[in-house]
This record gives sequence, structure tokens and C-alpha cells, in this order.
Amino acid sequence: MSELPKLDEQLKAHITTLAQPIKDDLLSGAAEIALRAITVFQSALTLLPDGKKNDAPLLKSILTYTASALIEVQPAMATLFHLGNDVLNAIDDASTVKEIEEKTNNTLTRFEQMLCDSVATIAELAYELIEPGELIFAYSFSSTVVSCLLNARARGRFFRVVCTEARPSMEGRKLASRLASGGIEVIHTFDNAMGLVLGNCSAAFMGCDCIARPGVVNKVGSWMLAVACRELKVPLYALSGTEKFVSDERLFEFEKHERPAAEVWDSAPKGVALLNHQFDLVPFDLLSGLVTEQGILKESDLEPYLSRSQNVNSALKLEAASC
Amino acid sequence: MSELPKLDEQLKAHITTLAQPIKDDLLSGAAEIALRAITVFQSALTLLPDGKKNDAPLLKSILTYTASALIEVQPAMATLFHLGNDVLNAIDDASTVKEIEEKTNNTLTRFEQMLCDSVATIAELAYELIEPGELIFAYSFSSTVVSCLLNARARGRFFRVVCTEARPSMEGRKLASRLASGGIEVIHTFDNAMGLVLGNCSAAFMGCDCIARPGVVNKVGSWMLAVACRELKVPLYALSGTEKFVSDERLFEFEKHERPAAEVWDSAPKGVALLNHQFDLVPFDLLSGLVTEQGILKESDLEPYLSRSQNVNSALKLEAASC
Repeated sequence: MSELPKLDEQLKAHITTLAQPIKDDLLSGAAEIALRAITVFQSALTLLPDGKKNDAPLLKSILTYTASALIEVQPAMATLFHLGNDVLNAIDDASTVKEIEEKTNNTLTRFEQMLCDSVATIAELAYELIEPGELIFAYSFSSTVVSCLLNARARGRFFRVVCTEARPSMEGRKLASRLASGGIEVIHTFDNAMGLVLGNCSAAFMGCDCIARPGVVNKVGSWMLAVACRELKVPLYALSGTEKFVSDERLFEFEKHERPAAEVWDSAPKGVALLNHQFDLVPFDLLSGLVTEQGILKESDLEPYLSRSQNVNSALKLEAASC
Repeated sequence: MSELPKLDEQLKAHITTLAQPIKDDLLSGAAEIALRAITVFQSALTLLPDGKKNDAPLLKSILTYTASALIEVQPAMATLFHLGNDVLNAIDDASTVKEIEEKTNNTLTRFEQMLCDSVATIAELAYELIEPGELIFAYSFSSTVVSCLLNARARGRFFRVVCTEARPSMEGRKLASRLASGGIEVIHTFDNAMGLVLGNCSAAFMGCDCIARPGVVNKVGSWMLAVACRELKVPLYALSGTEKFVSDERLFEFEKHERPAAEVWDSAPKGVALLNHQFDLVPFDLLSGLVTEQGILKESDLEPYLSRSQNVNSALKLEAASC
């Protein structure tokens, strides 16, 4: 993409406002967040000011800034990266506003369709992993996991789900509510009580935010779940489309996602430092499989996805760390 | 003990009121609770009604009811069982009120002295496990663990402590506050974030409520901690006097300790069952050692303690389970 015009502060502020609700959304899974991001891109397409309605380079700048802003608010979420990246790659060679609009809209539609198809395939595969009458553990909130469980229930499979709070944002409660309203019996407890319930489960499911060679990044607590599952011989599956694969450098962007200390303890005494990290990393050897739209992948199946070169738009390349 | 007179409802209610604060105390460790229970026994000694000040069998009944009430409010806490058991065994052959008072007071004094001596010896041993400049993980609240850490700091050893909330009662915050006010730098986070911090620790400490052949019973989450420690090769020590050993049947009394569902989620939707168990069980093979006043015991050292026959007063024998 050739040199683009700089945005004025007003436009930047407008885009930041559009992206802000996604930063504050700690309860939604990746697929839900991606659908919300699609509407942000749709709004961004309308931001050309009066008098500049035909300024194609300015619209490219707006979309580039939007893509970066969306990645910035949830740096661990691979789906947001790929959505933005697809949009920017699509408009790279567009030269008119009309062409940019068309290519953006086509990309957004294709992306949404891809997400829906992907979840439908994953739900088919997950159905076979849910044994009738058994107890399934599910951690945090993943819209893919919810879709799979509700789909299985709708198809007449009877089972119960155990989930835990997922402190501090309590996505586990959202999961419990969503499943219960879909007719699934849910048992809910504290994160530290996983060991009391996991032993009775026939399988455990989690979503994920991104995947690369070091493993799968997901809500903090996933690593503990994974270690507990191995100890108790409960198979643990990450349910995720292959759009979650990112480069190894991008994977570690999740470490940027530190949350406010006050969420841990709003009246901590002097001398107590607070740590509020949103994610942790589960190495592949702790997973029984990655349930994707390409099938249930074992660790040995992952190499092609891990080494696939990703066509990263120049505007989204990570800067080299300064030494 | 021969057949004792039944207590009237007023006396029973009085004793229940004395024991109640201990039921509600979810923040204190076993040694602290035992010191509070000693004062409950001291109060119980004053309960003989006017006109019955010389009624020795009635005083025995009062003390027996007090012992049972204290065990009932915290069924997992071995120290409460042994305190009550020691008092009842001591007064078994006493025939006058004066003799009962003397024997009870002597037992209480001896028990308190034993706890203090025990903690002092454990602190000596724990000191050697705290490497200078290192990070120590500590879980939940144990007065023995606090004493050991503060003692090491007072002796000039510099180290930092990481601890987590210990939902739902947040004993971890009490631990953090106590340590910070004693000049120890503390890092505090969520229970589900253990995996993010444990890898940087040189050792992990926990207290315990009771010990028998199946393992060590402690605050729920201890099992997760133990599994995570083994995965990360962090040695985990339970710090506890040998007065925590109980019979295998009594160990499982901890399963009685279910707490109110509303502590998990006070507005759970229909279809969501809530589970609030206070304790879990850590098998010995997940511990690097049991730091006691008799030394640091490995699994292979435990047999004499496990098979030691305990002189259980007839009033405190567990009823056989009905089949």
C-alpha cells in the first residue's frame, strides 16, 4: 500500500470510539467479537467527511486505522487480526472509493460466512465427543463451544455441563446462563474447585484466542485446567477454526493484555502488588485435540498450519522489538 | 465415661452460641481457631447454673457437648477434634467439679503450649526451605505458614511471597495483608492465575486441616496447586503439626463441609446448580514433604503416624454409616 494520508484527530477519535466497546467486552467469545468488529468496519466505510466523498486514499487510511485499532483493543484475538488483515489485503490495489467499498463489503461477508460454516463443521465433530448422559466440563466463554453444546442438545443428546466462574470477568456465568436457557443442566462452581468436579467429566472443552507453535492462548486458568485434565485422564479439546493460527511473534501479543489491578483487589494494602493477566498459554501436548473445520487435529497434524506463511499486510506487520 | 445427664435446651443454646463464631470464621488457620476454641472451653467451665455449682456430671455433660459442638462447626479441622478429645479424656475419671476444672485447664494450657512449641519448631525447619531472594508461593490462610514466613523475615531473610484469593472467603487477602504488614513484599492474583506465577517460585507452602492415609485435607484449590507444582517442578510443602493426623473415617468428615450456594452466585438462573465445597484432598505423592515438629516427613516416613491408634473418647466416636 503506497503512502497514505494521515488522519486528523477527529477521525481517529471517532474510530477509537467505535472500537472501544470491543475493548470493554470481556465476556464474549472470539466469533461474537468478530461479528461486532464487522459492524465496526461497516461504520468506518461511512466516515469520509463531506467534500471528501471521493477521496480513496483517505478511505484506505480510515480502514487501516480501524484495523489497527481493533487489533490493539484485543491483541490476543487472532480472529480480529485476520479480519483486519483480509480487509486491508483486499483493498490494497483498489483505486476508487466505490471499489474500496465493494471489496471491503465482500471481504466482510466472506469472513462472516466462513465463521458460520466453520462453527457448523466444528459442531458436527464436537457432537461425537459428547457421550450421552455424561458430564462435560467447559471453561470460560467461547461462542464456538456454546454453539456446539446447544447444537448437540437440540439434536436430542442429553448431557450436563460443569463450568466455573472464570475470574475476574465471570464469563463462566454467561456460559452457564446461555446453556441453561438452551435447556442444558449446568453445575457451576469456583475456579479453584476444578479438581473436585473434573474427575467426573468425560471430556472438557475450551475455546481459544490464538494458536501458534508455542500452543493455544486462552483465558487465564486454561493451563491449570489442562494440567488437571491430564492428571485425571479427562480429554481436553480446544474448539476453534483454523483462522486462529497466527505467527509466533503475534501469539505473544497476548502478554500485552494486562488488566487493571483494581479488578483483583480494589483496596489492597501497601506492600501488596497486584497481577491481572487475562490469558495463559496451553502447550499442545496438554490437549487431546484441536477441533477445527478441517477435522480434529492432533499435535502431529499441526505442522502445515504452523508453518503456513501468512500474507500479513504491510500496515499490520509487528515492529521488531528494540534491543 | 458413665451415662451423663442430658443438658436442657437453654444450656445447649448457650454452648451453640459460644461455638457459632468459629463456624463463621472461614478466614483463620487451624492454630488460630484452636486458640479461640480454648477460650470457648474456658467459658464452658463457667456455665454450671446457680444451685448446681457442685454438679460434676453436669459439668462433664457441658464439656462433652462443647467438644462435639466445636467439632461439628468445623468438621475438617483435626486440631479442634484433638483439643476436645484431650479435654474429655482428661476429665473421664474426675469426680468433683474442682477436679474437672483443674484437669480441663491443665489440658488447655498444655494444648496451647504444644501448638506454640510445634509452630516454633516448624518455623525453624521452614526457614531452611526459603532461599534468599526467591519467590515463595503460599495458598489460602494458615497461621502456621504465616508464622514461618514472618519468622524468616524477622531473622533477616529477604524473599517475596505470591498468593491468590482463595475464593470464596478470600483468605488469600488476609494472608497478603498479614505478610505485607510484617514487611514481606507480596504479589497477589486470582486462583486461576496460579499457572502464571508458580513457575517463578522456588517453593510453595500450604497449611492443612487434617491428615490421614488418603492424604492431606486443605482449602479447596490445594489439589490444583499441587498438580501445578508437580508439573512445574516446584516443591510443595504442607506445614503442620502432627496433631493434624486423624483416623481415615474422620478425614472424610471434611466432605460434610458444604457451604451456602449463594456464596457461589446469588442470582443464578433456573437450571444452574451451584456447588460450594470448602476443601479438597491432596494425596501424599503430590507433596514434597510434610513439615512437622518431628521433622520434614516424606511419604515413606508417615506410616507410624498413620497407623498410630488414637485414643478416641467414647463421646466422640463416629457413628458407623448406615448402609
